[in-house]
Amino acid sequence: MIHLESDYNNGAHQTVLRHLTETNDERTQSYGDDRFSEQARNLIREACKTSDAQIWFLAGGTQTNATIIDCVLQPYEGVLCAETAHINVHEAGAVEFTGHKVIALPAREGKLNVKDLQAWLTAYFADDTAEHMVRPGMVYITFPTELGTLYSAEELKALHDVCRKYDLKLYVDGARLAYGLAASPDVTLPLLAQTTDVFYIGGTKCGALCGEAVVFPKGDAPTHMLSRIKRHGALLAKSRVVGVQFEALFTSTQPETPLYLEIGQQAVALAMRLRRLFVESMGYHPFIDSPTNQQFYIVPNDDLGRLRQLIGFEVWCPVDDHNTACRFVTSWATTDAEIEELEKKLGKTGL
Amino acid sequence: MIHLESDYNNGAHQTVLRHLTETNDERTQSYGDDRFSEQARNLIREACKTSDAQIWFLAGGTQTNATIIDCVLQPYEGVLCAETAHINVHEAGAVEFTGHKVIALPAREGKLNVKDLQAWLTAYFADDTAEHMVRPGMVYITFPTELGTLYSAEELKALHDVCRKYDLKLYVDGARLAYGLAASPDVTLPLLAQTTDVFYIGGTKCGALCGEAVVFPKGDAPTHMLSRIKRHGALLAKSRVVGVQFEALFTSTQPETPLYLEIGQQAVALAMRLRRLFVESMGYHPFIDSPTNQQFYIVPNDDLGRLRQLIGFEVWCPVDDHNTACRFVTSWATTDAEIEELEKKLGKTGL
Amino acid sequence: MIHLESDYNNGAHQTVLRHLTETNDERTQSYGDDRFSEQARNLIREACKTSDAQIWFLAGGTQTNATIIDCVLQPYEGVLCAETAHINVHEAGAVEFTGHKVIALPAREGKLNVKDLQAWLTAYFADDTAEHMVRPGMVYITFPTELGTLYSAEELKALHDVCRKYDLKLYVDGARLAYGLAASPDVTLPLLAQTTDVFYIGGTKCGALCGEAVVFPKGDAPTHMLSRIKRHGALLAKSRVVGVQFEALFTSTQPETPLYLEIGQQAVALAMRLRRLFVESMGYHPFIDSPTNQQFYIVPNDDLGRLRQLIGFEVWCPVDDHNTACRFVTSWATTDAEIEELEKKLGKTGL
Amino acid sequence: MIHLESDYNNGAHQTVLRHLTETNDERTQSYGDDRFSEQARNLIREACKTSDAQIWFLAGGTQTNATIIDCVLQPYEGVLCAETAHINVHEAGAVEFTGHKVIALPAREGKLNVKDLQAWLTAYFADDTAEHMVRPGMVYITFPTELGTLYSAEELKALHDVCRKYDLKLYVDGARLAYGLAASPDVTLPLLAQTTDVFYIGGTKCGALCGEAVVFPKGDAPTHMLSRIKRHGALLAKSRVVGVQFEALFTSTQPETPLYLEIGQQAVALAMRLRRLFVESMGYHPFIDSPTNQQFYIVPNDDLGRLRQLIGFEVWCPVDDHNTACRFVTSWATTDAEIEELEKKLGKTGL
Repeated sequence: MIHLESDYNNGAHQTVLRHLTETNDERTQSYGDDRFSEQARNLIREACKTSDAQIWFLAGGTQTNATIIDCVLQPYEGVLCAETAHINVHEAGAVEFTGHKVIALPAREGKLNVKDLQAWLTAYFADDTAEHMVRPGMVYITFPTELGTLYSAEELKALHDVCRKYDLKLYVDGARLAYGLAASPDVTLPLLAQTTDVFYIGGTKCGALCGEAVVFPKGDAPTHMLSRIKRHGALLAKSRVVGVQFEALFTSTQPETPLYLEIGQQAVALAMRLRRLFVESMGYHPFIDSPTNQQFYIVPNDDLGRLRQLIGFEVWCPVDDHNTACRFVTSWATTDAEIEELEKKLGKTGL
Repeated sequence: MIHLESDYNNGAHQTVLRHLTETNDERTQSYGDDRFSEQARNLIREACKTSDAQIWFLAGGTQTNATIIDCVLQPYEGVLCAETAHINVHEAGAVEFTGHKVIALPAREGKLNVKDLQAWLTAYFADDTAEHMVRPGMVYITFPTELGTLYSAEELKALHDVCRKYDLKLYVDGARLAYGLAASPDVTLPLLAQTTDVFYIGGTKCGALCGEAVVFPKGDAPTHMLSRIKRHGALLAKSRVVGVQFEALFTSTQPETPLYLEIGQQAVALAMRLRRLFVESMGYHPFIDSPTNQQFYIVPNDDLGRLRQLIGFEVWCPVDDHNTACRFVTSWATTDAEIEELEKKLGKTGL
Repeated sequence: MIHLESDYNNGAHQTVLRHLTETNDERTQSYGDDRFSEQARNLIREACKTSDAQIWFLAGGTQTNATIIDCVLQPYEGVLCAETAHINVHEAGAVEFTGHKVIALPAREGKLNVKDLQAWLTAYFADDTAEHMVRPGMVYITFPTELGTLYSAEELKALHDVCRKYDLKLYVDGARLAYGLAASPDVTLPLLAQTTDVFYIGGTKCGALCGEAVVFPKGDAPTHMLSRIKRHGALLAKSRVVGVQFEALFTSTQPETPLYLEIGQQAVALAMRLRRLFVESMGYHPFIDSPTNQQFYIVPNDDLGRLRQLIGFEVWCPVDDHNTACRFVTSWATTDAEIEELEKKLGKTGL
Repeated sequence: MIHLESDYNNGAHQTVLRHLTETNDERTQSYGDDRFSEQARNLIREACKTSDAQIWFLAGGTQTNATIIDCVLQPYEGVLCAETAHINVHEAGAVEFTGHKVIALPAREGKLNVKDLQAWLTAYFADDTAEHMVRPGMVYITFPTELGTLYSAEELKALHDVCRKYDLKLYVDGARLAYGLAASPDVTLPLLAQTTDVFYIGGTKCGALCGEAVVFPKGDAPTHMLSRIKRHGALLAKSRVVGVQFEALFTSTQPETPLYLEIGQQAVALAMRLRRLFVESMGYHPFIDSPTNQQFYIVPNDDLGRLRQLIGFEVWCPVDDHNTACRFVTSWATTDAEIEELEKKLGKTGL
C-alpha cells in the first residue's frame, strides 16, 4: 500500500528531524530571537538573493494566510483571488474572521488570469459607487495552485505589473512551494522575491513537522509585526522550533541546492513516473494537467475499489456517471521503492 | 552559566523527542484524526478520570486562549480575570481581537479572589444598566499564576461554585500546569476536570517542542470545533505532531505517574533547592512566595552584575532604589548538576 | 426638472414629519422603551398578522444587515446570497467586518434561484471537506431586489422550504419593501412573516427620515438583543425617533391600508406611467423588466444630454458602444404633477 | 412632575425641528454630499476657528466612538481612558467588538489624571515585554465626563502634551459638549480644535433628534473615511438628516453664539438653580461636584418616595445604609417654569 492521500500525512524529513535533535538542548532566546532562526533567515535571504528580506516563522498555512493578509491590508480593503483559492474555499472563513472580504474571480485551471484581474480592476475603478464597495488591496495566488498547476515567470510578471499599476500587494501562498519550484522551468526564489510583495515558503507540506516562513522580500513589512503576529495567536514561544527546521531545509548539501529544492525535485520526479504509469500503462486521462506533486486522473468507477487496495488516494469530484476524478499526491516522503512496486503491479497488466 | 530565564528556551524532553523520531515515518490521517492523537486523548482522559472529555491539540498558549475563549463565549459576553492575567497583559490583545472584552479584577498575589469576583457579579447583576454593559460569560484563571502562585482545591471549588451560581464558564490556563500539579498539595487533574468547564494542559513550557491540549472535561464543547479552530488559524494540518508529543507526556513510566507529572516534580524540586540557596545562603527575600518553578527574589542592585555572570535570569520590576525583583525559572530541562554547581559557587560565601 | 436619482434624496413623508412634530415634547423612556415604539410594534404585528413578532428599530440599512446577520449566524457560519446582493456589493464589507463570509451564488435578474441554491447546498453537504469550509447558516434575499425585480409567493415558499430542509435562516432585506408589496400580486406582510425567519421593513427609502424595523415574526430572536445591537453601535438613545415614524407609517388612513402601503402604491403607479412613457412614446427598451419603483432603460447615448436637462437619473452601466442602461427611481415623494409634466414634454415628440 | 431622568427623553429643539420641516422637500445628493451638510460643516469650522477641519455626521454616540476609535487606531493599538469612561462601561463592548483593547486607568471624579497617564506610559515604554502588550494609540476622554465634571483648559493642554510626547491621538467624546462648553470657564471649541486630534460634538443629547458631528480639526483624518464609516454600518443614506440639524444647531441667533451654545447655557443655568434648591433648601450634599447639566446628590432613603412624586430621576448607586446617590439631569428641554414650580414646592419647607 502506497500512501498518496496528501503531503502532510507523516512527520519530518530525516535531515530536518536530525537537526531538531542535534540542537535540542541548546538554550536560546525565545519568540524568534534565537541563532537558529537568524541563521535560517540568512539562508533564505541568500536563496532569494535579497539581503533586505524580512522573515517570520509561523506554525501553519491557514494561520499564515489570515495573519499576513490582515497585517498587510488596510481595514477597508479586500483580497482578490481565483475562486478555487485556498483562502476562498478551504480555510473556514479565516480571512473573513479578520474582517476582510475575499473577492473571488474566475479560475482557469486553478489560476487567476491577468486579463480577468485587469477587467475587474478596470470596472471597479470606473464605478461611481466604488467607495461603497470593498476596495481591492491585494492579489493572492497559490504557487503551485490547489490543482497543481503553475504560473509561468511571464504570468507572474504580468500579475506583478497590474498590481503595481493599481497599487495592490501581490502575495503568493507557497504551501507547496518546493514542488512548484522543482517543476517550473523559469520560476525561482529570486524571481518570486522580485515579483511579489510577500510570499510564504511552506514547511508543513515540504519536509517539516510544522511551520511556514513568511518573506517580505523588499523589507517593507508593516511595523510592529511581532505584536501583530501575537495578536493573531500566531507567535510561537519556541519559535526556534520552526527556525531550526528551516535552517535544515535551506542548508545546501550540493552547491546552490538547498534541501528544500531537493525535496521538491524528488517528489516531482516520482509524480512524473506516476503520470507515465497512469497515462501510458493504465490509459487514464488527466483530470487536469499538473506538472507538480499533486496529480489528478479520471478513474473509471469500476477501478476505484481495486485501486484502493494498492494506493491511498483522495476522491476529488465526480466527472460523470462512470468516472471519478481522483487526486494522487507524492511528497518528500514518497520513495523510489514505493513507486517501483506500483509500476511492477500495474505496469504491464493494469489493475 | 545556568539558564533560568524561562521554561521555553530549548527543545523537547528526550522522551518526547524520541517518540517524535520513532513515529516519524508512519502515515496517518491529518487534522487530528490519527492514532497518536487518539491515544494521547485516551491517556489524558484516564489521567483526568473522565471518559467523556473532548480534547483538541493546538500549537501555542496565546492561540489557545484566544480560540477557546472566543469559541465558548457568546458574542456579547466578556471574560473576567485577575488584572495580572496573561490574557489581560501579555497577549497583545489577542482576546479583544476576537471581539471580547477582558474584564480585569484586582489580583492578590496573582490570583483572582472569590470575594472580589462575587462582589463584582453582585454589583453587575444589581445594575439597572447591565444590558448596556458587557455581560460576564467566563472566569479565566491561570494555574499556576503568572507569579507562580497556586489556587488551593478549596479556592478552585469556591470559584466553581460562584460560576455555577451565575452561569459562567470556568476556564483554567494551564500553560505551566505540570509545575502547578507537582507543587500543589491538593489540586489534581481529576479535580480540575470536576471543577472547571474547560482547561488546557500546557505542552510548550512543560516538555514539548510546541503544543497545548485543550480539555472539555464534561464533553460539552461547542459544536463544529474543527471549523471554529480552523477559522482561528489554529488547526494544524499535521496535528499529530502535537498528538505524538502528548502521547509521550501522558505515558507513565511508573505506576500512575505520567511523564508530564514527573517533569513537574523534578523542576519544582530544583526550584525549592534554589529557594533554599537564595533565602538561606544569600539572604534574599522572596518578592512573592511561589511554590512552583517560577521563583521571584528581591536582589540588591549591587549584586545584579555578578549574579548575571552565573545565572541567566529575567529582571521583573524595580522594588526600590536599591533593589530589584528578579525571576528565576526552572524547567524540565534544568539539571541536578546545574543547581549543584550553583550551590557550590554560592552556598558558602555568597556572591 | 424631475428628480429620479434615488428614493433617499429628501426628508420624510408629510404624515411622518407631522407625527414627529406632534410627539416632540412628550418625555419618554429611551432605548426603545417608549410608548410610540411599543405602539409601532403593535401596528406592525397587526399588519403582519403575527402576535409573537419581536421588533427592533435601527437607523439604516447596511447597519441593519450587518447587525442582524451577525446576531443570527453562528460564528463559523456564512450567508448565502445572489452575487448582485447589496451585502455582497455595496456595503463596503460590513458583513465581513463582523467576521462572516458572504457566499455569492449566481443571480438571475437580481434574484437568487432556488435551483442554484439547492445545487450549492447539495454539493456542500456532500463534500468530505465541508468542515474546512464556511458553513451556510442563512439565505439573504432582497425584496424588491437591487434590480427592482420581485420574488413570487411561490418562489419565496420554495426558498423557505429549502432553508427548512437544511436548517438555514431565511432573511429578507426590505429596504424598499413598500414598493415591493405594492407591486407584487401575491407577496404580503403576513406571507413574509410566515415564510421568513427575520426581515426588515425599510423606512429610509419608504417615507421616513431614517430607520428600519427588524421583525422576527416567530418571536425567536437571539437572546440579549439590546446588548448585541448596542455592541454593533446600532442602538439609538432616542430610539423613539424611529418608533414615532413607524407608528405613522403603520397607521391606516383607509381600512387595512397602512400609510406604508399607500406610499408604495403611489410610487409604483407613477413608475408604471413612466414605463409607458419610455417604452411607448420614447421607444426605449427596458434594461431589466422591473415592476417596482426602480426602472431601468436602455438609453441611446445621443439622448443622454437632453434627457439630463429634464430628469435627474443615474447611469447604471454601459450596454454597448451606443447605448447606456440608466436607472430612474420614483418614490413616495414623486408627484403626479411631476410625471404629468414629463408626459407633456416627452409624450408626443420625444426628446 | 418634572422629568430629570436623562437628556435624551424627548424629541428635538424647536428650531432644529423647524429646520427639518423647512428643508424637508428639497431634493439633494445623499451620503453627506448635500448643501445642508456642507453648510453645517462650514458653520462648525467657523465655530472651531479652523478652516481645515474634516467633519462627518453619524447617528449615535456609541456608534461614533466605536467607528472613530477603530478608524484612527492601528490594529495592534488600544485606547487609554478613565475606568469610568463610557467606552469602558456602558457601550456593551462596542470598541472591543472592533478588535481593540480598552485600557482603563484610575478615574478621579470621572477624569483621567495626567499624572496617572504619564506614569502608565512611562512604565509601558520601559517594559522589555512591551511588544507583547497592547500598544497605546489613543487617549479617550469625555467632556463633560460621565459624572458631569470638566477638564480645565490647563488639564486638556497637559493631556495634549503627553499625547504629543508619546505619539498618541487625543480623542474627546462630546456627547454632552454643549453643557460642558456652557459651564467651562476656559474650554472653547477653538481650544478643543487646537488640543485634540479628533472630537465629536454631540447632537442627540443637545437638541437634535439624533446625530453626532465628528471633527478632525487638523484635517488629517484617515483616508477613505466614507468606506470606513460604511463598513461600520454608520453611514446614513440620508445623512442630510443630521446635517440639517447641525446646520440649525450652529446657526447663531445672537452674535457669535450658535444655538448649540445657547442650549447648553440654558440647561446649565437651570442645573445651578436646582443645585441651590437641593443644597441650600433641602440640605442635600452633592455626591460629586458637577458644574454641568448632570447633578448628583446624596438623598436620604426616607426622601426617595416623596421626591419621586415630584421629579423623575435616576438612582445612581447606594452611598450607605441610609442614603442613595441620585442623578438629576437638565437639558435643552427643561423649562424655567418647571424649575420654578419645583422651587415653589420645595423651596421653603422641603419635602
